Amino acid sequence: MNPPANITDPLVLFMPSGKRGRFPKGTTVLDAARQLGVYVESVCGGRATCGRCQVVVQEGNFAKHKIVSSNDHISAFGAKEERYARVRGLADGRRLSCSSAIEGDLVIDVPQDTVINAQVIRKAAIDRVIERNPAVQLCYVEVDEPDMHKPLGDLDRLKAMLERDWGWKDPLVSQHLLPSVQKILRKGEWGVTAAIHRDMDLSRPTIIALWPGLHNEAYGIACDIGSTTIAMHLVSLLSGRIVASSGAPNPQIRFGEDLMSRVSYVMMNPDGQEAMTSAVRGAINELTAKVCAEGGVSPDDVLDAVFVANPIMHHLFLGIDPTELGQAPFALAVSGAVHTWGSELGLKINEGARVYLLPCIAGHVGADAAGATLSEAPYKQDRMMLLVDVGTNAEIVLGNRDRVVAASSPTGPAFEGAEISSGQRAAPGAIERVRIDAETLEPRFRIIGSDRWSDEDGFAADAERLGITGICGSAIIEVVAEMFLSGVISEDGVIDGALAARSPRIFQSGRTFSYLLHDGTPRITVTQNDVRAIQLAKSALYAGVKLLMEKQGVTSVDTIRFAGAFGSFIDPKYAMVLGLIPDCDLAEVKAVGNAAGTGALMALLNRGHRREIEEVVRRIEKIETALEPNFQQLFVNAMAIPNKVDPFAKLAEQVSLPPRKLLSDEASAGDAAPRRRSREERAARRGRG
Amino acid sequence: MNPPANITDPLVLFMPSGKRGRFPKGTTVLDAARQLGVYVESVCGGRATCGRCQVVVQEGNFAKHKIVSSNDHISAFGAKEERYARVRGLADGRRLSCSSAIEGDLVIDVPQDTVINAQVIRKAAIDRVIERNPAVQLCYVEVDEPDMHKPLGDLDRLKAMLERDWGWKDPLVSQHLLPSVQKILRKGEWGVTAAIHRDMDLSRPTIIALWPGLHNEAYGIACDIGSTTIAMHLVSLLSGRIVASSGAPNPQIRFGEDLMSRVSYVMMNPDGQEAMTSAVRGAINELTAKVCAEGGVSPDDVLDAVFVANPIMHHLFLGIDPTELGQAPFALAVSGAVHTWGSELGLKINEGARVYLLPCIAGHVGADAAGATLSEAPYKQDRMMLLVDVGTNAEIVLGNRDRVVAASSPTGPAFEGAEISSGQRAAPGAIERVRIDAETLEPRFRIIGSDRWSDEDGFAADAERLGITGICGSAIIEVVAEMFLSGVISEDGVIDGALAARSPRIFQSGRTFSYLLHDGTPRITVTQNDVRAIQLAKSALYAGVKLLMEKQGVTSVDTIRFAGAFGSFIDPKYAMVLGLIPDCDLAEVKAVGNAAGTGALMALLNRGHRREIEEVVRRIEKIETALEPNFQQLFVNAMAIPNKVDPFAKLAEQVSLPPRKLLSDEASAGDAAPRRRSREERAARRGRG
Repeated sequence: MNPPANITDPLVLFMPSGKRGRFPKGTTVLDAARQLGVYVESVCGGRATCGRCQVVVQEGNFAKHKIVSSNDHISAFGAKEERYARVRGLADGRRLSCSSAIEGDLVIDVPQDTVINAQVIRKAAIDRVIERNPAVQLCYVEVDEPDMHKPLGDLDRLKAMLERDWGWKDPLVSQHLLPSVQKILRKGEWGVTAAIHRDMDLSRPTIIALWPGLHNEAYGIACDIGSTTIAMHLVSLLSGRIVASSGAPNPQIRFGEDLMSRVSYVMMNPDGQEAMTSAVRGAINELTAKVCAEGGVSPDDVLDAVFVANPIMHHLFLGIDPTELGQAPFALAVSGAVHTWGSELGLKINEGARVYLLPCIAGHVGADAAGATLSEAPYKQDRMMLLVDVGTNAEIVLGNRDRVVAASSPTGPAFEGAEISSGQRAAPGAIERVRIDAETLEPRFRIIGSDRWSDEDGFAADAERLGITGICGSAIIEVVAEMFLSGVISEDGVIDGALAARSPRIFQSGRTFSYLLHDGTPRITVTQNDVRAIQLAKSALYAGVKLLMEKQGVTSVDTIRFAGAFGSFIDPKYAMVLGLIPDCDLAEVKAVGNAAGTGALMALLNRGHRREIEEVVRRIEKIETALEPNFQQLFVNAMAIPNKVDPFAKLAEQVSLPPRKLLSDEASAGDAAPRRRSREERAARRGRG
Repeated sequence: MNPPANITDPLVLFMPSGKRGRFPKGTTVLDAARQLGVYVESVCGGRATCGRCQVVVQEGNFAKHKIVSSNDHISAFGAKEERYARVRGLADGRRLSCSSAIEGDLVIDVPQDTVINAQVIRKAAIDRVIERNPAVQLCYVEVDEPDMHKPLGDLDRLKAMLERDWGWKDPLVSQHLLPSVQKILRKGEWGVTAAIHRDMDLSRPTIIALWPGLHNEAYGIACDIGSTTIAMHLVSLLSGRIVASSGAPNPQIRFGEDLMSRVSYVMMNPDGQEAMTSAVRGAINELTAKVCAEGGVSPDDVLDAVFVANPIMHHLFLGIDPTELGQAPFALAVSGAVHTWGSELGLKINEGARVYLLPCIAGHVGADAAGATLSEAPYKQDRMMLLVDVGTNAEIVLGNRDRVVAASSPTGPAFEGAEISSGQRAAPGAIERVRIDAETLEPRFRIIGSDRWSDEDGFAADAERLGITGICGSAIIEVVAEMFLSGVISEDGVIDGALAARSPRIFQSGRTFSYLLHDGTPRITVTQNDVRAIQLAKSALYAGVKLLMEKQGVTSVDTIRFAGAFGSFIDPKYAMVLGLIPDCDLAEVKAVGNAAGTGALMALLNRGHRREIEEVVRRIEKIETALEPNFQQLFVNAMAIPNKVDPFAKLAEQVSLPPRKLLSDEASAGDAAPRRRSREERAARRGRG
């Protein structure tokens, strides 16, 4: 509420925030919004040139006894606003809030998607609106010319205007700007746009970039540095819109397939860490260039960057030797959030750009898990939420608003298709879906690159074209689960050799039996060892979850979120059949795609989310499975495949992954291109998965 | 006062601050000091290992009716203090304030010169005590070892200890430290010393350096970047002691002798600014290496640096093109104080070291003038103080606690010996003192490198050895003044040709007359043009002073401070005879040496002085002589040499520059080496002066 307002002053309601207040007639809508704490962007500082402060004037009447036109309640177009509408265009019902004054009761809608420049607009990569409060703000000012009577420096006069027009008191200035301040001011004929970075109490607000004239765009990148894949969003800090998303393989793969082999590489090679740091930074620069090119954005307009990563990637990106993370007590060099500069990390974005890394939760539960936690917010739920991100280690978070616990469980690489005889990375021709007929034990399957099941017309042509090359990670779960459901394997995971008499699909190899999934070149089989590897992995995951449930004192969870590529491609139904996750209403099990990346995006667009996750991570109770005396017992107990005969009957009625999840997964892969291309992206993202 | 103290608690008085308070028995002296805001250094955090918190326990009795021994009033030596005294040595009467507890009334003297390590102690370069409150503090902590149950990062546990032991709440960390944190902690076996930089509200306190174990030294440099000479002090931030001072020629001289020719060089050469920036930074690095070598200090232990400079040097040092300063309106790129990092400026000191530049006052009145203003503090005086720093431009500050005005006056290079026919830079063999007998018109003089006057025994040998090569800057003033006092020149500066009949020293050359100062090889003469050049220079200076006096509404000043090399070498008496400065009691005219450098030193040792000079510079009224309608008239009026016949009689009785001033000047040249060497230093420092 505006304190000095009179009860007879017009009442203004802002939507969607619902904030309202009375303001004297003549108050601009922008001023009213600011007084109420409604975030309305403005770059030009009320000069009706940037167009960022657009609002929709919905109606102008709160008085029930009469209907009045909103036209009476808001000032008419002035010359500046008229000019903006003529030159740049202004949709019906839209007004520039800096130039329209309150004349009566109003309902003002603040749109979240005002697009000013000819941005390439992609399909939303995430299906949520993130309230904006970015760490970077653009401020246009008109600076006094030099005056020999008041010989303040050019920069000092600029600062004076930033204080007068925008309230920035004595901001700091990035050193790299000093040599160019004078030229920029003269080029802009004393009108310049300053980018101000202010991340709460980190330091005084800082001028990090400066352009001549009105500069009406500022971007940020949100990046998840995975061991296999680096995923990045490029987003407008002024509108919140994602203008491009993409992914690229992590080039560190050449130093070691999984995290521990990369740590070994560092331990064995004197300049191993420098080489891997350089590789990951180079890949991030290439990916930045790519998303900038796709979005039609100059990398020089990227002013802020937020990163999430697992602890080892986090350390290597920062130039820290990860050796300590390879051995107990798995000491992180730094667990708290890291604030730094892009230039310190060799990033090819604006020279003054800032960088923020979310905190790590523990030595094996990284900033990526923190990002996923921020995204899914178990700490805001009344119900008990299980959040799982499966990779070489599974990062597990379990909690609600009262208490959150987290752990990492050593699932090994089986879920990613490694150590599986016919396992391969997700690529065209890899089997990705499997069904086994319980009567005939005959399989049918789908391969990446084809929409058809193997028993459908036209599949043969697809198979001819693509080949049938192996089983990708997500299908490993499915085939083992289907083998269980069809009785090929028992609860304790043994392939029933007696079935060899019933079907040639079951055959002996050495002292154990295997299942023939596809008799081609290559032959694709599931061996007893493959089943054992999946059993070990799923036991580790389940034991970790169970341990956290014990810590929480619960015997079931209310809702499950599968984060990451693995979670996006597996069918939760089969995960539950195999016992990767505890029982839960299947409607409450969701794949949330790259939740870590979504968390990075949230922290990029809203500084409040940074403080939020820092605070949450401090509160999370970290459980080290290796130190828990009963983890081993839980692990052994979890080896068996649950007797799901009854639940399965119910589960089997439910549909497979609904299309929405596949779409949201594609979107998180960052590409709205046709299906073929999207597949390739996914293939790249999943690595061996 | 300690609020919960009881009237029966012991009373403790700290000297020299005079702060006092009552504290419960058992309170350590260090805690008591901190509670009272008495600055007592401590690096080890009360472990009795650093020895920085030494105090002198003077007496223990305030009660007039009885005498008690202080031994009763302070706790006996404990094991740790005993060990320190045995191993490191502790002078009689000294105690470690962290380890001695209050047991009764005490008077505690906090020494300002506690020296812990085997520093090379030089003669004090400045004759004042600067109260210490440096921006950098060393803090030793013992960090918890990694704990898998509480997987905080190594850095985060370090921060936790910095908060627990030292009260630093969530300090920031220099990015460059992240890769080394883990190794340093392990090398120090979890005991490390952190250097914390905290310059008021600039940002959160920041960890800028880290060492294994107890690191018991931190240094800073205070540097004045002059057009001709760069002067530097190396100071212990922990004791305030100057451990080395030195000077070096500014290598930019090769781009242009004076400031304006250097600006021209930038304007004419595409990479002129880069070349000059690189030159001055290189010279500063060499000088830093030199003072560090002299002081036996590693450049890596230099953690803070404060610079003053004239505006053009200031800009070139920061990498800013100074072109705008070469033309009206003489716009500075930045006038306010600059906070940055040594690494941003390519300084070869600790990688995390901070840099602070004092504010510039105006386009021709630089951070050097601000430094001199901080040093001499006219704004703290009741009386009207004139502060003059003469170079190619004279920087003039006039004021008292009510009001301070400042201007620059275009004196040109004559005072520095340029544009004078026999002028030369101060070097062995240059004439530096002159007397002319009013009867005979015969001169006698002294040359640099000899202690004898030219009419004394033994001078001939010195002259044979050194040569008699020219007149240095300071002697120009003296010879013209002596010519006036002896009647060789008139009030309007004309050499009286009629005297040629009386003395062969006066001789015609062209249409005017000259004075023969020395008939050797070369012949050293003072021409009519030389006198005119000095008249022009002194008129400019005097007109500037007069203009400021008009602004202040005063007809005289109470006290005069000559700053800089010129001021150190000229005899104020002759300056007054010639009318460079207004009438003033000669006892109130002082040469203050490199006051700009002293100001830098003050800002280095005490952050409070930074805020002080920033505030003062904002308040100073800047006068641009070029815009003042009556400056030209004042200039013309000042051409004449004042009729000083009467004042001179009084002045002549007074002694020449007292030895103290010469000493203090030498000290500010930074060298306590034998006289011969000191001369050379001065020669280098004065350039053509």
